[in-house]
Amino acid sequence: MINTISGGFKGRLYPVNPKGGTVAGRKVYRSVAEIPGEIDLAVVTIPARKVLDLIPQFREKGIRNMLLITSGFSETGKHGRQLEKELVNAAQQSEILVLGPNTMGICNPHNNLYCTGSPVMPKPGSTAMVAQSGNMGIQLLAFAEQQGIGIRAFCGSGNEAMMTIEDYLDGFEVDSLTRTVILYIESVKNGRRFFEGARRVGKKKPIVLLKGGRSKAGNRAAASHTGAMTSDIKIFDAVCRQAGIVRAEKPMDLLDLAAAFSSLPLPAGNRAAIVTLGGGWGVVTADLCAEFGLDVPELSAQLIAKMDEMLPTYWSRSNPIDLVGDRDPSIPMTVLEELSKWDGCDAVINLGILGRRIMVKRFGASVLQADTAYSPEVIENLNKQFVEFEKNYIEHIVKLMDQYKKPIFGVSLLPDENNQTLYRVAGSSFKGVFYPTPERAVKAFAKMVEYHRFLKKNEQ
Amino acid sequence: MINTISGGFKGRLYPVNPKGGTVAGRKVYRSVAEIPGEIDLAVVTIPARKVLDLIPQFREKGIRNMLLITSGFSETGKHGRQLEKELVNAAQQSEILVLGPNTMGICNPHNNLYCTGSPVMPKPGSTAMVAQSGNMGIQLLAFAEQQGIGIRAFCGSGNEAMMTIEDYLDGFEVDSLTRTVILYIESVKNGRRFFEGARRVGKKKPIVLLKGGRSKAGNRAAASHTGAMTSDIKIFDAVCRQAGIVRAEKPMDLLDLAAAFSSLPLPAGNRAAIVTLGGGWGVVTADLCAEFGLDVPELSAQLIAKMDEMLPTYWSRSNPIDLVGDRDPSIPMTVLEELSKWDGCDAVINLGILGRRIMVKRFGASVLQADTAYSPEVIENLNKQFVEFEKNYIEHIVKLMDQYKKPIFGVSLLPDENNQTLYRVAGSSFKGVFYPTPERAVKAFAKMVEYHRFLKKNEQ
Repeated sequence: MINTISGGFKGRLYPVNPKGGTVAGRKVYRSVAEIPGEIDLAVVTIPARKVLDLIPQFREKGIRNMLLITSGFSETGKHGRQLEKELVNAAQQSEILVLGPNTMGICNPHNNLYCTGSPVMPKPGSTAMVAQSGNMGIQLLAFAEQQGIGIRAFCGSGNEAMMTIEDYLDGFEVDSLTRTVILYIESVKNGRRFFEGARRVGKKKPIVLLKGGRSKAGNRAAASHTGAMTSDIKIFDAVCRQAGIVRAEKPMDLLDLAAAFSSLPLPAGNRAAIVTLGGGWGVVTADLCAEFGLDVPELSAQLIAKMDEMLPTYWSRSNPIDLVGDRDPSIPMTVLEELSKWDGCDAVINLGILGRRIMVKRFGASVLQADTAYSPEVIENLNKQFVEFEKNYIEHIVKLMDQYKKPIFGVSLLPDENNQTLYRVAGSSFKGVFYPTPERAVKAFAKMVEYHRFLKKNEQ
Repeated sequence: MINTISGGFKGRLYPVNPKGGTVAGRKVYRSVAEIPGEIDLAVVTIPARKVLDLIPQFREKGIRNMLLITSGFSETGKHGRQLEKELVNAAQQSEILVLGPNTMGICNPHNNLYCTGSPVMPKPGSTAMVAQSGNMGIQLLAFAEQQGIGIRAFCGSGNEAMMTIEDYLDGFEVDSLTRTVILYIESVKNGRRFFEGARRVGKKKPIVLLKGGRSKAGNRAAASHTGAMTSDIKIFDAVCRQAGIVRAEKPMDLLDLAAAFSSLPLPAGNRAAIVTLGGGWGVVTADLCAEFGLDVPELSAQLIAKMDEMLPTYWSRSNPIDLVGDRDPSIPMTVLEELSKWDGCDAVINLGILGRRIMVKRFGASVLQADTAYSPEVIENLNKQFVEFEKNYIEHIVKLMDQYKKPIFGVSLLPDENNQTLYRVAGSSFKGVFYPTPERAVKAFAKMVEYHRFLKKNEQ
């Protein structure tokens, strides 16, 4: 309730409590019957044993959708399972759809609906997310908010008493705002329906999935958490492969892949061109590419000749392209453009061009501290120049992606003060993507290659 | 120079430049000969071709140590190699030790010496770090500063014309302030000496190493970067294993392991007890443990009986221990104490107890926004309570580690506003360690187990 109000939801909200009174300056209705006007969604948080009594009241009032946040149902044992079964039967008879119970809530940033128990408020975007775990959902939304990853809608699916992961997939298939689907799953109730749904969705938009309960210990924990049945992880993995589901190995992979899939064109192959501000970084990134099955092809003679015109005589003349710390801002711009045109690579990874504003800012502060005679205006201007350059640089990257449809993955020189991963540019559906470390950029590229291969295979 | 001043170095600094004048309010000497008093270290940034001329001046002045930041030596090709050779010969004859050339500099936070080209200023600590790559070094120091990881000393070793990685190892062996050694290496000049040194050091303190140039593409890049010779990675890996060197797979592993090794007691085995505020997180963490070769043992009947007294009737009764979101602050305290005593596990991973202050703060702000009638004082008090609880919680953790010598790895509920990994407690050499994600905690534990096994094997 509180988060829904402070999140800025524009629709009407009616608090209901038998005690009446006011909450947050709003009249509290004693029952749903008292509410004037129609209700699209009832959000229920009353104790589990009292929920069943709501069904006739909802039917009377014409309420068709219930978000049941309350816990204390099937996740607590035999008695809870019985209670949940009764509730589902009653709801079905009254044609009321129940989401939950035992869910942390839902959000739809596109209409400012943040109906979650925890105050996490990511911005609107194209990544739809379902988590069969409340705290996993909170974490994912909090990191999405921090990194600037836009959310189409989120749902903690809870015990999935009626609405299941299979239903959400059907929804994502037809929802035009959804470009990427992110799932945290511990178990699937209807394996065949899940597989068929995922396969249909997967041909249209990527599904990225983290499966909880891969190991014996994890499975044991999942059983006591959501009552998940032990699933054979080999079978599950095979199903995912066939359905084109992109597998995440850990929670943060989900967000890194959401950022990449929702912001970059798909790479047409696995060849990486690497541009770096410094040698060691290029070395490590090339190693990571090899580890993730990506190629780091040699540069063509033509490309080397073009770079010779710009770079110092002792530049590396190979891929990774080491810009040798050069600070002429036009050089990385031109290098990125040449690589976007080059048919010898399928993606560009650029290391450390972005983030120099942070370095320059720190350096300016250091200068002013060391030398009181120094003009703060000069430093301020320098800062502005680099901020301006980076704005132009990101716009340039997005334009190149619009034109050449080749993804450009970025790694920021220093950890971003605001922890942003995504940088939006008006007028394009592509975005600047800058991870804090090369491993995250390389992994995202590799997973996009995997998905592209699935699509190509299915075109044939 | 600028960074050294603004970093607060307490020793004397003498700028030298033939033009004279002043810089940062200090007199600039026209030559080293003019400087009054003795010089411990000369920091040289003049062009490469002029460096050789300094040697006789330094000899004359009695300068024995040169930090040569200037690039343009062996890394640029044949001519540069010749220049470097001449310089080394001349320096040796004059008994001058050269660090570099082509280095990003050094720092020693223990005496506020931040002599690097980039303004990165981590706090003093026990992690010694050497990087054969300037920008890798900058990144590592910047992240160390951000995460609160203390640095004993850092050195960008550059071309290693005289001082090599083997020399640094000898130093770390005898330095009592160094508890953990972090290395980024592309090549080693004297394999046997490196191995012997690493083996000696490794028995006393952990060496964590990332090898750049593991792949063909990475090796090619390393060759053009530091002129590293292609090394057989299988041989290198075998050497590391025998020397007890802990291998990092990516740059950020180095910092996560620095945080763990310098702050936690070594685990005596591979059995993890997991405590979580929510189910899904425990599931994922148990899966990660399995992936990294760690056990997640079942709880003893005695332990379950103890937990029964504290936790709701429907608690998981197994490992991971799900606290079911309970907010009584004494419960996680007691659970951690019981697990620290329990001889059935070798480490405790606690998920999301810390970080509730962030959630509460956000929630408080949300309440005040939604309900203007609400008292800001009440919210402020709630915030204070949680900040206070977390302070106590960290002190409790550190005390438990002091007493039971069992590591406690933490994962913060939400990304920390200040990106801290380490939380210091006066009076203990152990620290609270809280990573932002479970995968980083699990990996750190697994690598500590690996190192502990090496030590045990070598005791026999």
